[in-house]
Amino acid sequence: MDIRTEIIAVGSELLLGQIVNSNAQFLSQQLAEIGLNVYYHTVVGDNQNRLKHAIETAQKRSNVIIFTGGLGPTKDDLTKETIAHHLGKSLVIDQDALTNIEQYYLQTKRSMSENNKKQAIVIEGSIVLKNDYGMAPGMAIDVDETIYMLLPGPPSEMKPMFTQYGRTYFYEKLGFQEHLTSRVLRYFGIGESQLETDIQDLIDLQTNPTIAPLAADGEVTLRLTAKHKSEEAAIRLIDELETKINERVGQFFYGYEQTTLFQKVKELLLAKNKTISAAESLTGGLFSQHLTSLEAASQFVKGGIVCYTNEVKKNLLGVSPLILDDDGAVSEKCASEMASQIRLKTNSDIGISFTGVAGPGKQEGKPVGTVFIGISTNNSTNVYPLHLAGSRHGIRNRTVKYGCHYLVKLLQGIE
Amino acid sequence: MDIRTEIIAVGSELLLGQIVNSNAQFLSQQLAEIGLNVYYHTVVGDNQNRLKHAIETAQKRSNVIIFTGGLGPTKDDLTKETIAHHLGKSLVIDQDALTNIEQYYLQTKRSMSENNKKQAIVIEGSIVLKNDYGMAPGMAIDVDETIYMLLPGPPSEMKPMFTQYGRTYFYEKLGFQEHLTSRVLRYFGIGESQLETDIQDLIDLQTNPTIAPLAADGEVTLRLTAKHKSEEAAIRLIDELETKINERVGQFFYGYEQTTLFQKVKELLLAKNKTISAAESLTGGLFSQHLTSLEAASQFVKGGIVCYTNEVKKNLLGVSPLILDDDGAVSEKCASEMASQIRLKTNSDIGISFTGVAGPGKQEGKPVGTVFIGISTNNSTNVYPLHLAGSRHGIRNRTVKYGCHYLVKLLQGIE
Repeated sequence: MDIRTEIIAVGSELLLGQIVNSNAQFLSQQLAEIGLNVYYHTVVGDNQNRLKHAIETAQKRSNVIIFTGGLGPTKDDLTKETIAHHLGKSLVIDQDALTNIEQYYLQTKRSMSENNKKQAIVIEGSIVLKNDYGMAPGMAIDVDETIYMLLPGPPSEMKPMFTQYGRTYFYEKLGFQEHLTSRVLRYFGIGESQLETDIQDLIDLQTNPTIAPLAADGEVTLRLTAKHKSEEAAIRLIDELETKINERVGQFFYGYEQTTLFQKVKELLLAKNKTISAAESLTGGLFSQHLTSLEAASQFVKGGIVCYTNEVKKNLLGVSPLILDDDGAVSEKCASEMASQIRLKTNSDIGISFTGVAGPGKQEGKPVGTVFIGISTNNSTNVYPLHLAGSRHGIRNRTVKYGCHYLVKLLQGIE
Repeated sequence: MDIRTEIIAVGSELLLGQIVNSNAQFLSQQLAEIGLNVYYHTVVGDNQNRLKHAIETAQKRSNVIIFTGGLGPTKDDLTKETIAHHLGKSLVIDQDALTNIEQYYLQTKRSMSENNKKQAIVIEGSIVLKNDYGMAPGMAIDVDETIYMLLPGPPSEMKPMFTQYGRTYFYEKLGFQEHLTSRVLRYFGIGESQLETDIQDLIDLQTNPTIAPLAADGEVTLRLTAKHKSEEAAIRLIDELETKINERVGQFFYGYEQTTLFQKVKELLLAKNKTISAAESLTGGLFSQHLTSLEAASQFVKGGIVCYTNEVKKNLLGVSPLILDDDGAVSEKCASEMASQIRLKTNSDIGISFTGVAGPGKQEGKPVGTVFIGISTNNSTNVYPLHLAGSRHGIRNRTVKYGCHYLVKLLQGIE
């Protein structure tokens, strides 16, 4: 079967530019991974006639049509009603979904308004996709050799639903012949153009696997994609290319797929049985927030101090007033003292500190982008100076990523 | 003239999910501002047949069609060729564009490859839109009462081109008579379905202004849009509707447009001349991170303690071991003590605390979603218990937003 996939996002907020269609991006990545060719994205508003027109157009050119949005409780939410009507199907209550919704209201101790029941309605004959993070279930139905899949609009519900249940549906339904295998390699500390220059000959020669570089948020990724009748052979092709690439730029490589630098730090802290605490001036809690957002954080994060003012640096963290007076808060000495103090005060194996100038203006006469990261262990304390460009937001984000980068190097060196 | 606008983005990288269609979002916002209704977004790959199909489909349903992408020098770039063919027009060299390209190479001291000249080719009879930030010019042409506008794909080129030249084209071409005015009202602490129920009669009656609700990240927004020959009158229509809506749900209203709860907290802290510090267990620095991401944060944030472990709660923050033993870390008493301790330890006007169970598992026998927020001033300390549902990420995010919500109420009450 020649698969021609189309993604239809339903929602006037997209046509008004209030939000970006990140759902289409996510689904496109997912579908590329499982080998479904996506030929069109469409966005249409919460309007029955135009949605109907979009469905008719899609049906003529696509045989897998994935909808996001319009499954909610309000009158604007028209997706399943319009598709059901188009397919000549009726709508029925799904008992499991209804129970799930009632459960949600019990748990949050709020009263359920009547229109919420609308979310438990599904197209008759469809396979219901459970919503583990919200109320409206998804569904999939195959009519006249065309698959219609309906997913909720909020990314926090749609993404896990597709990954968990949507992918499986396609695997079982379509039984793929040629294996398309992809692997994403992640790099930090090297720019995109430098990385591309270093592997230019490999990029020029690419056919199978292909190499697709992408830069975002100070990181560079390479997506390697191989096609082969045998999945093993496809994986072997990728393995070989990865080895070749990392012989050149392996020092900047830190992980695969969606792994973040924070996950890598977590993994290494757990493996080496170490704990960490952070003293954050410039970054104001950003580093701790990222680490504690990971499950089981209490096994490797003890805590930290957000020492945004010099008063807190002195009184709570114990930085010497002399350092603050002579060198200033944005200095190598202050970063060093912050890192060792937070380690001692929290009884952690590692203390890390972040101080610098996020902007918009200079601070202590030091230009925007001046950054010092301190890392302290019971053996030694090192300070890494950086000069970063960009917005306040960008500087803070790249600072915590550099912190992770240095931690990864440190932890990898510990037996 | 009844304007029906469609945005067609051309580029296989969008269909592979390598990038998100931020161009469509930007253009939609711009077009909403100048009063052009956008009814469809389409994304199609670098494929002549499918691009041709997308143009034919658009032409049937839209009379303003804006293309982004596919104007570059490579063989993949097919947009203008395909549109010219569709319109039965030929392609001609634009001398100004060619000079611009040659100038660019002179300036960057690089040699110009022959395929770059392709970028200076435009559709005959079109109005050329200058590219001030790159090489490929845009163009606009009106054929059979349909306007075709072609813009480059890179946002850094497309955005200034549209703002500078694209908007002007539409102004001159369409000679607007009616002013379209929009205002976004932001609510927190009320669900979308409850808010809609509360103002259902206003929604049912809507014609001018219209009311568009949107829920995201635990917040609900209403976009009110009015049309009128006089801009003043349009604003008055919106003012009146806002008053009616907020007579019902004003207690949950916190700001306009893109204002965040954190910005509202900042605004009120500065206005009332108060400082704040946070003791964060559950949220691990998330609250402090958000506040310090705002400019001039040192004027209202002193600092904070991330007390992820009980050890840090006791030793660094000074929570009584008795409370931790008897009531546990996830308790009203602990939240209260955390808030007053952080206020005292940092010498702040307000101390705020966050403790709770983010999951995935229970903690101290308390279910996921159990949350306590403490707020301490020199007058009193209050604790707000919550029961939240959702993912670890969702619970943490909504917790800090609830913290802001209670702070806003508190600060609004201070003279």
